[in-house]
Amino acid sequence: MPVFEQGEYSERVRKTKEAMQKRGIDLLLVSQPANMNYLTGYDGWSFYVHQCVLVSLTQEEPMWIGRGMDANGARITTFLSNENIREYADYYVHSTERHPMNFVADVIKEKGWDKATLGVEMDQFYFTHRSFVELEKDLPNAKLVDGNVLVNWVRVVKSDREIELMKKAGQIAMRVMDTAIKEINVGVRECDAAAEIVRMEYKGTEEFAGDYPSIVPLMMAGEATKTPHLTWSEKRYEKDEAVLLELAGAYRHYHAPIARTIFLGQNPPQLMKDTAAVVLEGLEKTLEFVKPGVTAEDVEAKWREAISHSTIVKESRLGYSIGVNYPPDWGEQTISLRPGDKTVLQKNMALHLIPGIWYEDVGFEVDASICLTERGNESLYDYPLKMFLK
Amino acid sequence: MPVFEQGEYSERVRKTKEAMQKRGIDLLLVSQPANMNYLTGYDGWSFYVHQCVLVSLTQEEPMWIGRGMDANGARITTFLSNENIREYADYYVHSTERHPMNFVADVIKEKGWDKATLGVEMDQFYFTHRSFVELEKDLPNAKLVDGNVLVNWVRVVKSDREIELMKKAGQIAMRVMDTAIKEINVGVRECDAAAEIVRMEYKGTEEFAGDYPSIVPLMMAGEATKTPHLTWSEKRYEKDEAVLLELAGAYRHYHAPIARTIFLGQNPPQLMKDTAAVVLEGLEKTLEFVKPGVTAEDVEAKWREAISHSTIVKESRLGYSIGVNYPPDWGEQTISLRPGDKTVLQKNMALHLIPGIWYEDVGFEVDASICLTERGNESLYDYPLKMFLK
Repeated sequence: MPVFEQGEYSERVRKTKEAMQKRGIDLLLVSQPANMNYLTGYDGWSFYVHQCVLVSLTQEEPMWIGRGMDANGARITTFLSNENIREYADYYVHSTERHPMNFVADVIKEKGWDKATLGVEMDQFYFTHRSFVELEKDLPNAKLVDGNVLVNWVRVVKSDREIELMKKAGQIAMRVMDTAIKEINVGVRECDAAAEIVRMEYKGTEEFAGDYPSIVPLMMAGEATKTPHLTWSEKRYEKDEAVLLELAGAYRHYHAPIARTIFLGQNPPQLMKDTAAVVLEGLEKTLEFVKPGVTAEDVEAKWREAISHSTIVKESRLGYSIGVNYPPDWGEQTISLRPGDKTVLQKNMALHLIPGIWYEDVGFEVDASICLTERGNESLYDYPLKMFLK
Repeated sequence: MPVFEQGEYSERVRKTKEAMQKRGIDLLLVSQPANMNYLTGYDGWSFYVHQCVLVSLTQEEPMWIGRGMDANGARITTFLSNENIREYADYYVHSTERHPMNFVADVIKEKGWDKATLGVEMDQFYFTHRSFVELEKDLPNAKLVDGNVLVNWVRVVKSDREIELMKKAGQIAMRVMDTAIKEINVGVRECDAAAEIVRMEYKGTEEFAGDYPSIVPLMMAGEATKTPHLTWSEKRYEKDEAVLLELAGAYRHYHAPIARTIFLGQNPPQLMKDTAAVVLEGLEKTLEFVKPGVTAEDVEAKWREAISHSTIVKESRLGYSIGVNYPPDWGEQTISLRPGDKTVLQKNMALHLIPGIWYEDVGFEVDASICLTERGNESLYDYPLKMFLK
């Protein structure tokens, strides 16, 4: 059973068709798992093989096409009628002779959609160059154009119901970070802390289940604090070590990322203390500024202004839009908080601000996961903005 | 620090160059995270942005190219010298104006490699159609050819050291399945069982850490047993419900998948009992047959013969090669156990045989993760081949 009521999916499909019309696209082939989920409810870990959702301007319902063994999964998780669930035979999987897109092209021909202007997600993982080549070969009368991030941009303003799910993810995020701060201690193996953290991610609350976040717990300690994106080993935490934590709560694939920094001692290096003070104050000032009507680049400029009294330089973007997602990323690939992004922020957009700073020896991370309200913004969770000393 | 000794990486690079020469490729651009890890040791959850490893016939060391903030991660986890770690600026990330492959092309030109026959992984996720288009545009003197699964095929025969790591993954897999069988009970929430399972996946053993498997715990109960690839919710297990479990142990990204079926009662449906009996006996007979010298399709034929006395039909492949991997798949995309795959099996290949059967109402899953020995094969773990009644 899909997560949302039928009306919500209909509205998403309607908005997608509107965006297609604006871009002159008759038929859209959606491969990104989050986009497939958004349009149909489909939810299975089957995205390691080719699969897609087709949206045609000439048909009300989208169509799911995937591997035979996953068709029952589509029947269980989507709202689609059976004629719009199409399955390819297993000999298309990892074959050197045929490709799942040959099957997709056959369905497109059967439906009479093969003279369409066909949008494909040209820069999304899960749609390969070979996918493109096979479609082009099999559909000589179609015109292939770029439909990249078209659905992502439809996703950018959430419904009230989606915001509710993100707040549930926020409740999980708080428990997850509580667990991390409790479990990470001198002498504990990194893997044992990771185990307790991910346990809480999946467990959720007494009322509702957690889901797997799109990114595993990122937890950099000691030497590794000079970089993001590393995981864990059997190494034990040492005294006076910093630990950067980039975690999340997820509910029905909606995300509330949460990042904090722990120092395993009472006297962090001066550079870390100074950085923490500047970053925390800068983030708070930036959060006060975020509201409907300002642009993404305005937010980043506000941040830069707020830390301009220091020597800190943050070269990477300050943040990005979040919502429903699947591995490998919880970012939506729409809004980036950085110079040049002139997107005007609106109510029910959701942002992850993550001013991570990495030096040659040590780093500091903290974040905020927020949604925009009528006049400002609110956090998806209520968690102290500080460095944790243990 | 990379997981293996320098000599092991050198040998992998040597074999890759040999395969490149056979296919007339001067320069190979590797995007698949497992292939990047295999050639350099690189290990970070940064594959949600574009990154690659270049292997040139004219240079001994491979070169890592990725996002600036991940360069320190490359310095920590690879054996590469600093000149072979190249970083692109953050404004290449999710930009509408520029693409990380523009930077990669610049490096290729700087190195004088731009007249090369350039192999790219045309049907791997993480290398998009846009990646191809940008390289083609920026490198008009290069000839782009398909280098898909080239490194995957180098990976197919493991070193003794790799087999050791897979057996460590096997030790974790046993604990993970023990946990699942202990925790899944009538009245327990699916998410709480998932939480204990994933906890054990990450925790590993007293001696070594577990790693995140490439696929989250797949656990289908009740109605969902008619399909693979679904996860969990807050639903509670019910009496006389079947639960299909597809789990894994992973160590340093080497996998030992493990699948079993639980029935929460003493009287499974007759169809399930019959299916289990046939499948378990068929799998055992097939395992007796697997040895160096037979082909992948021979193994599948043996399986089909072993179950031919029943009405069971398995349309999907019987199994595939496994080893090091990253999300979304633990399959290697090389050997498939199915008609037409004439790969001759060799010592130190590793296979996952997973004869999952899904009917309209119920399914049954069991598996074997094995490596080939001098004269036969051995399991990566020692776990009862049976249906578990609780």
